[in-house]
Amino acid sequence: MSLAYYYDLMSQPSRALYIILKMSGVQFEDCPVALRKGAHLTEDFKTNINRFQKVPCINDGGFKLAESVAILRYLSAKGKIPEHLYPKNVVEQARVDEFLEWQHITLRITCALYFRAKWLDPMLTGKKPSEDKLASLKTHMETNLAIVENLWLESTDFLCGNQMTVADIFAACEIEQPRMADYDVRAHYPKIRAWLQRVREACGPHYDYAHQFVYKICGSEPTN
Amino acid sequence: MSLAYYYDLMSQPSRALYIILKMSGVQFEDCPVALRKGAHLTEDFKTNINRFQKVPCINDGGFKLAESVAILRYLSAKGKIPEHLYPKNVVEQARVDEFLEWQHITLRITCALYFRAKWLDPMLTGKKPSEDKLASLKTHMETNLAIVENLWLESTDFLCGNQMTVADIFAACEIEQPRMADYDVRAHYPKIRAWLQRVREACGPHYDYAHQFVYKICGSEPTN
Repeated sequence: MSLAYYYDLMSQPSRALYIILKMSGVQFEDCPVALRKGAHLTEDFKTNINRFQKVPCINDGGFKLAESVAILRYLSAKGKIPEHLYPKNVVEQARVDEFLEWQHITLRITCALYFRAKWLDPMLTGKKPSEDKLASLKTHMETNLAIVENLWLESTDFLCGNQMTVADIFAACEIEQPRMADYDVRAHYPKIRAWLQRVREACGPHYDYAHQFVYKICGSEPTN
Repeated sequence: MSLAYYYDLMSQPSRALYIILKMSGVQFEDCPVALRKGAHLTEDFKTNINRFQKVPCINDGGFKLAESVAILRYLSAKGKIPEHLYPKNVVEQARVDEFLEWQHITLRITCALYFRAKWLDPMLTGKKPSEDKLASLKTHMETNLAIVENLWLESTDFLCGNQMTVADIFAACEIEQPRMADYDVRAHYPKIRAWLQRVREACGPHYDYAHQFVYKICGSEPTN
């Protein structure tokens, strides 16, 4: 049986895993899930696809698995992810894992909450957030963007060394999100700007393909 | 050179990793860090211990690593964590990883934010949160506790099957936190109550040792 990949390119980790699967040459059954239409909220989705009703998730010959980072590790353990993207060396892998664990309640949540409050919720509900709330969310996001700029990118071309790994792909997909909410990360953080260009180039055509809807909402591709 | 473990037993992932190290028989240099005294905020800590200025973290013969889950995986790769706690079988490990990735922006953040708003911030600043804010944080926390009760513990004794793994230890340490803020998880969720007792028993004396300050603040051990 084949590997089925359920995703929505509007979801940051869905995009990251999509790029990783494509770069790794993993064959998969393409299963887009339209979150905006609530396709993940049905009983059928809950019972047959993912009990947590989120994307991304996979079904690998009957084995259902959620959580992008867990999926990445599972596919790596099955020999499907090239070592340059997710190292097998214990110390190098630990450094990538450190980023993958760090990002959840720092970079990921703060970029996502800013995007949601500034763009998604007003579009869905017609209500604008208070200026205070938005300012607070922006501060939290910028705190973590500054950590990427000043610590993760302190002295290397990529987050975990001088080669691109999955850490960079996950991070870039999170950092592209607030651009849809008119926050230009590239204008504020020069190291992030140069790094995003390196990641985009290293991902080949898959980066732009995965971000096609992001670019559409932004009105343009990033200028680099 | 030995393994140095930096931790504070008031930190949930510090407690989890402490219990896991003890249950695994890992020898380590004991390096408690008093967060309440700002011991992690010094330049020395940032330069020499953890650039992110958080606990837990390790220094393994010169290799500095942060993020509890990354540390667990690193020690497992080095053969220091028994297989029953963190499985080597690809499918079983993926199920544990699924929980470890799921918990960050669901269970962990919502229990932590409720604890912080209800107990920690008022203690530090003298200011109480608004009733609206507290109600909202409680709802978010209960949404995720209900997922533990109804999905993760749907049909098994532990989160990832009928044997305790590191997933249970990480989860229990998060779920003990709001008890300090007068939220009695055990009274609301019968499956979680019974599961917490199983985890506590399976961890031997290390569970109660790691939670000694939590129990002190709560005024008692949990009644089970």
